[in-house]
Amino acid sequence: MLFVPQQGRLILRTEMGQIEASPTEIIVVPRGVKFAADFPDGPSRGYICENYGQPLTLPDLGPIGANGLANPRDFLYPVAWYEDYDGPCEVVAKFGGQLWRADYNHSPLNVVAWHGNYAPYKYDLKRFNTINTVSFDHPDPSIFTVLTSPSWPRGTANVEFVIFPPRWTVALDTFRPPWYHRNVMSEFMGLIYGVYDGKESFEGGGFMPGGASLHNCMAGHGPDTASFEKATNADLKPHHIDNALAFMFESRYVMRPTKFAMETKALQKDYYKCWQGLSKRFRA
Amino acid sequence: MLFVPQQGRLILRTEMGQIEASPTEIIVVPRGVKFAADFPDGPSRGYICENYGQPLTLPDLGPIGANGLANPRDFLYPVAWYEDYDGPCEVVAKFGGQLWRADYNHSPLNVVAWHGNYAPYKYDLKRFNTINTVSFDHPDPSIFTVLTSPSWPRGTANVEFVIFPPRWTVALDTFRPPWYHRNVMSEFMGLIYGVYDGKESFEGGGFMPGGASLHNCMAGHGPDTASFEKATNADLKPHHIDNALAFMFESRYVMRPTKFAMETKALQKDYYKCWQGLSKRFRA
Amino acid sequence: MLFVPQQGRLILRTEMGQIEASPTEIIVVPRGVKFAADFPDGPSRGYICENYGQPLTLPDLGPIGANGLANPRDFLYPVAWYEDYDGPCEVVAKFGGQLWRADYNHSPLNVVAWHGNYAPYKYDLKRFNTINTVSFDHPDPSIFTVLTSPSWPRGTANVEFVIFPPRWTVALDTFRPPWYHRNVMSEFMGLIYGVYDGKESFEGGGFMPGGASLHNCMAGHGPDTASFEKATNADLKPHHIDNALAFMFESRYVMRPTKFAMETKALQKDYYKCWQGLSKRFRA
Amino acid sequence: MLFVPQQGRLILRTEMGQIEASPTEIIVVPRGVKFAADFPDGPSRGYICENYGQPLTLPDLGPIGANGLANPRDFLYPVAWYEDYDGPCEVVAKFGGQLWRADYNHSPLNVVAWHGNYAPYKYDLKRFNTINTVSFDHPDPSIFTVLTSPSWPRGTANVEFVIFPPRWTVALDTFRPPWYHRNVMSEFMGLIYGVYDGKESFEGGGFMPGGASLHNCMAGHGPDTASFEKATNADLKPHHIDNALAFMFESRYVMRPTKFAMETKALQKDYYKCWQGLSKRFRA
Amino acid sequence: MLFVPQQGRLILRTEMGQIEASPTEIIVVPRGVKFAADFPDGPSRGYICENYGQPLTLPDLGPIGANGLANPRDFLYPVAWYEDYDGPCEVVAKFGGQLWRADYNHSPLNVVAWHGNYAPYKYDLKRFNTINTVSFDHPDPSIFTVLTSPSWPRGTANVEFVIFPPRWTVALDTFRPPWYHRNVMSEFMGLIYGVYDGKESFEGGGFMPGGASLHNCMAGHGPDTASFEKATNADLKPHHIDNALAFMFESRYVMRPTKFAMETKALQKDYYKCWQGLSKRFRA
Amino acid sequence: MLFVPQQGRLILRTEMGQIEASPTEIIVVPRGVKFAADFPDGPSRGYICENYGQPLTLPDLGPIGANGLANPRDFLYPVAWYEDYDGPCEVVAKFGGQLWRADYNHSPLNVVAWHGNYAPYKYDLKRFNTINTVSFDHPDPSIFTVLTSPSWPRGTANVEFVIFPPRWTVALDTFRPPWYHRNVMSEFMGLIYGVYDGKESFEGGGFMPGGASLHNCMAGHGPDTASFEKATNADLKPHHIDNALAFMFESRYVMRPTKFAMETKALQKDYYKCWQGLSKRFRA
Repeated sequence: MLFVPQQGRLILRTEMGQIEASPTEIIVVPRGVKFAADFPDGPSRGYICENYGQPLTLPDLGPIGANGLANPRDFLYPVAWYEDYDGPCEVVAKFGGQLWRADYNHSPLNVVAWHGNYAPYKYDLKRFNTINTVSFDHPDPSIFTVLTSPSWPRGTANVEFVIFPPRWTVALDTFRPPWYHRNVMSEFMGLIYGVYDGKESFEGGGFMPGGASLHNCMAGHGPDTASFEKATNADLKPHHIDNALAFMFESRYVMRPTKFAMETKALQKDYYKCWQGLSKRFRA
Repeated sequence: MLFVPQQGRLILRTEMGQIEASPTEIIVVPRGVKFAADFPDGPSRGYICENYGQPLTLPDLGPIGANGLANPRDFLYPVAWYEDYDGPCEVVAKFGGQLWRADYNHSPLNVVAWHGNYAPYKYDLKRFNTINTVSFDHPDPSIFTVLTSPSWPRGTANVEFVIFPPRWTVALDTFRPPWYHRNVMSEFMGLIYGVYDGKESFEGGGFMPGGASLHNCMAGHGPDTASFEKATNADLKPHHIDNALAFMFESRYVMRPTKFAMETKALQKDYYKCWQGLSKRFRA
Repeated sequence: MLFVPQQGRLILRTEMGQIEASPTEIIVVPRGVKFAADFPDGPSRGYICENYGQPLTLPDLGPIGANGLANPRDFLYPVAWYEDYDGPCEVVAKFGGQLWRADYNHSPLNVVAWHGNYAPYKYDLKRFNTINTVSFDHPDPSIFTVLTSPSWPRGTANVEFVIFPPRWTVALDTFRPPWYHRNVMSEFMGLIYGVYDGKESFEGGGFMPGGASLHNCMAGHGPDTASFEKATNADLKPHHIDNALAFMFESRYVMRPTKFAMETKALQKDYYKCWQGLSKRFRA
Repeated sequence: MLFVPQQGRLILRTEMGQIEASPTEIIVVPRGVKFAADFPDGPSRGYICENYGQPLTLPDLGPIGANGLANPRDFLYPVAWYEDYDGPCEVVAKFGGQLWRADYNHSPLNVVAWHGNYAPYKYDLKRFNTINTVSFDHPDPSIFTVLTSPSWPRGTANVEFVIFPPRWTVALDTFRPPWYHRNVMSEFMGLIYGVYDGKESFEGGGFMPGGASLHNCMAGHGPDTASFEKATNADLKPHHIDNALAFMFESRYVMRPTKFAMETKALQKDYYKCWQGLSKRFRA
Repeated sequence: MLFVPQQGRLILRTEMGQIEASPTEIIVVPRGVKFAADFPDGPSRGYICENYGQPLTLPDLGPIGANGLANPRDFLYPVAWYEDYDGPCEVVAKFGGQLWRADYNHSPLNVVAWHGNYAPYKYDLKRFNTINTVSFDHPDPSIFTVLTSPSWPRGTANVEFVIFPPRWTVALDTFRPPWYHRNVMSEFMGLIYGVYDGKESFEGGGFMPGGASLHNCMAGHGPDTASFEKATNADLKPHHIDNALAFMFESRYVMRPTKFAMETKALQKDYYKCWQGLSKRFRA
Repeated sequence: MLFVPQQGRLILRTEMGQIEASPTEIIVVPRGVKFAADFPDGPSRGYICENYGQPLTLPDLGPIGANGLANPRDFLYPVAWYEDYDGPCEVVAKFGGQLWRADYNHSPLNVVAWHGNYAPYKYDLKRFNTINTVSFDHPDPSIFTVLTSPSWPRGTANVEFVIFPPRWTVALDTFRPPWYHRNVMSEFMGLIYGVYDGKESFEGGGFMPGGASLHNCMAGHGPDTASFEKATNADLKPHHIDNALAFMFESRYVMRPTKFAMETKALQKDYYKCWQGLSKRFRA
């Protein structure tokens, strides 16, 4: 389980210790590890990705070499901690796709010591060493991969956690926002803070922090009309993107929205209109 | 055999066709393919790398994705061509580490047609899609790999052809030239044109186009004193490096200079002095 | 999607260009590529295989060496083509196992240029370089593989496209038709033209061009009685099979016939009788 | 060590048992296993290949499937056998490239029982299931592989044992003998009996049973002039090659002839003349 | 299908021959092979594991070396056998998760000869070469693996057949029974004879020969209270465990008990009570 | 470089920090890392293995599971340390098989901080979790592997560091010392303290702490006569071997003794006599 706090701190008390994450930090809890969540800042909000595939891991860096993207030393593991609590305790577990509950008469967070590498951890997204073009063209978003759950065949991950962090954008002779594309991966995007550069001016608010967009497998998409016009006419000087932190859960599986998501008033039923203004460019 | 012309065009007439390369282009001729070389611009100069390992290939791009670095479509293969020549022809071959010669009474470049993928090709280094940090830190030079001859175990190539092409350099909070290092790969560098940013001010000329430097396995090296001072005090604005094209043959093998190389007057016997000015920084 | 025209030409207008295939040719369209189909010869017929696994690819040739079976150079890709059409256009897509439709006001086949290797292609089955025994025994049908979608573990493909093309049959001391067998792969066979040598004389027509047979996982099968008798008593001279082109979609998955297939009058409900004439050969 | 008897039987008494091989059979003895050789038919002759690489093994069959080429069940291992001999016994061993000898006072062939899979074996080449083209073209000789010592990278074996056994040749529209070629593998050929179809008519005897030819790495070669003329004008009916058994030790290493081989009167110093009669085919 | 007889001999008449197994022996029948079962000792009992993944195979031994655990030479295959029976014969097959039946007028066990490696076999568990700690600590149960159906990613098998055979237990400074754990593998245990050392004293009978326990994925478990107390206070001398043979089917899949299993009177509904006596050890 | 102190502590001052090892501990220093050695206990002695292959690593544990043999957490890395020393300093390096020296005017051990995983480390052999048979038979010594430098093909390591630590030996029906064998690996053994159980009683001292034995590739060896007699007649009760710590450098390469080793008076020229007393066991 990957937690991406967006508003308010998240504290997880786990069997291996306590972890606190602020927005721009993430927490990963391995399958089967018990935890309790506290929200010290009051009403809080964030995103959760439940990974059904292989454990999340750092991608092979290939020609990027020995360092780059998320560096191993920036992942932090908790020290052991336990609570000696006697009293009613409700434990909820997911098993076989269902949620189950049980009453304990003590806290299950009573592990005095542990060792091994199957443990929860946190990572601060601000430590991400962003790599990208310094010449021309727009690389695939895989270059922004923080963590991946590899698939077989390699190349179509079960899920990848990708971020669009503050960075320099310097490509010459290039349309700099994400291009228009349609691909086999399903793309769920979220916004931690700021304004994402592919959805800058969508009428009525566009892509808001705490919101989400979903472009499933083979659904074509790309910048909205305003972003397209702006990027097409931009002066291609070096530009420091420093006002947003978006992310993507990218998966080879199709994602099915919940009933809640389909019925909420927050659903943007006219989202498709953001592309309606794009005009035909064929010349007679 | 990898040809890197540095001054004057190189034309190779091969069994599979003719290839012309100007400086900033390269040619690769597979093992065993006969060829003749012409220099249409008069006195010419360049570098040759003879690869004893696996054929040169593009590196796996890893998280860089489907496009980046040298793109496959930019490698050009010749169309078939032959000459019907009867007359004396001297053929020289390397076999078992020795050169051998024979007299033919006709040209061996008499192949009328061919198909397959074992053929010579050229590549224009200006088409290299350079990827690098757009945040901080100085990635490994493997990020500049054009072609590699992979080794086992993976990670220590027989030889890699790496270039330092025109590009933006934007890293923040970073010493931007190549850092001081000592590593298992032997590094042979050449300069096609311009001024390399790690050897800017070496007295008496430093690193000249057409010259070469060699730092063998585990020999520590880094910027000269002047480059160090300049980089340490630089204002870290985006900077477009556009005045040089250097390259490196990087190998897990130790390179042994020839007798010619050790005795030429061009040998910089006081090269080590470029670091003598570096002062101790411990404070009492 | 693999198209196998059996009667009449098939023209696909795709996002990457137009492809025409006659019977004995095939077309493959990758997942997600939009296309329209035209049938210039009037009522037409053929087979389609929708591959849910890895993309179809050429098999590793193993000891067959550098050339053989379907050669890479015989696969043809279209040149870019587009249509600038404004008007009603119905687009149908399969998503999550369902068919969906939408109305466009223009043609989606409006891609002006493309590059990459994710594109539709055609192949002429007459160019297949058939390899088989030239001594004795009857090799596995995998030796007839044109394209395969590899599985993990290797060896049980998601689907393989296998053909039984014109060829010499010369095996000595051998029962030459497919032997009686029962295996883990499900076998769907079709016949493009002619008479298949394992079903030569089935009463009432047997295996007709345009027809199909299905032997699912672990269902034993083999030549019909007449074919068995003929092959058992044959004079084993070299024989040139030149009167038929059959093929097989072979898969590790079980294939489930549609309701249409189970209810059509073309269904041969007495197919099993083709083996009833085989007599017991134990001697008292 | 691979033994290929060409004249007279070979009996090896080994630590694991006794093996007898006639011409057309082979024996393989793993590294370090002691043996004594007997020649019951008097003066005998054959070929030996000492493999410095990985143990010889059957090739992966790829699309050939589960059976074909040399089948595992045809390799025969000896039953345990020992001799209880007291008396002088000279033992010779190769170690570090040198031969060493020692005097024992008993036979080292005194192993009473053994189990495992590191043992000598024999194989009858007549059991080879030959696979080849039944349509057109001339496959690589790898299709005749009996045993291989795999290399890294895969595809350039340390050594392969390849045979040219009796078989049908039926290729249409094809020059049927081995084509003219030059390749990275060194080819040492021997002839067990008969007339090899690429060297049919070389003046003075050509390629004799018990003889050998060597075409080292990148040395071009092909049929002699007479074989070329005969094959060019042949009527391409099915033809059963049944009068010869040649073989090849094919290696990625260069083979260096011994002093004996270079000085023997049997050396064909005018071998190159077999191609001198080939005439130029360019037309004015 | 893996058969584990627990009471009475099992005789399987299969297409490839007959196999008899007594308790402490096992039989594996590959998918699709027909067989009939006889029970010569009257009422009999045992366990069956139907493997949906890759065929069961021996594990790679890693540093254990060339011999250890179940040795290949101890797996026995039947010689060919057939019956020439004419008369009614009911054949039952499982296909697509359903059972199907058909009436034959002869026995399908009429295979006169066979070769290959897809055949049933038996193994005597008493021949298992048990490896374990001879110093301290309690290794993972994978060290008891007899056969495994490997998964991808490696490390989480489809199913593993693991035994707890007679052996020395000598670990110093160690809690010797299976420790308390919760893991991703589902554990189905059976007992062939004797008293399992993790369930020694469960009131009312505990873990009986012929019984079974199931701890599904991530369900924590370990020794019962009595076993815990006994092991905690044990004198850690070498001890020869020789009075029991338990086994485990361990799988990455969740196992779902049948309706029969959930409703049988043999179900131990108070099984969880075996841990109720474990007391809290925190000290104030 | 692997250091095995046998007498007296070894302190290495390295670029990454200081490491102290007593006998029964080892130190590994990666290639190219500078260090100085101190011997605080006066005259000291030990063994050094220089590994020319891949870096030493822990073996894959295979069925041993997640823990066993040398556990990762027991390998200790130094904290950063440096010395600010100005003055003469002689630095010796090995390069291309030769030793080279240079005079520095300061200490090269001046690295203030470091991160990464290419660093020296130590390990205490007493923490080795020994695994072995608890039933019968004598496993391969690979089961005692502490560190290995893997080879290609896998299975014949460049070098393995193997120890014979204190442990229980409990095998039934088994000759418990190392059996007589001859194998492809060269075996260099050393003794840190005590009496090795295969060389217990060699006249004149046998195998002494600080001594070494070398059995090169395919040189047969095994227990001396007295050890053989003792083991043959032993009562096979559990026995705790606690009086010795021997080790082995095992390599696929042949080891060549130095001139010093061949000429020292410590050389046991009559070592072969330790087996002379073994008598023939064939019965008339």
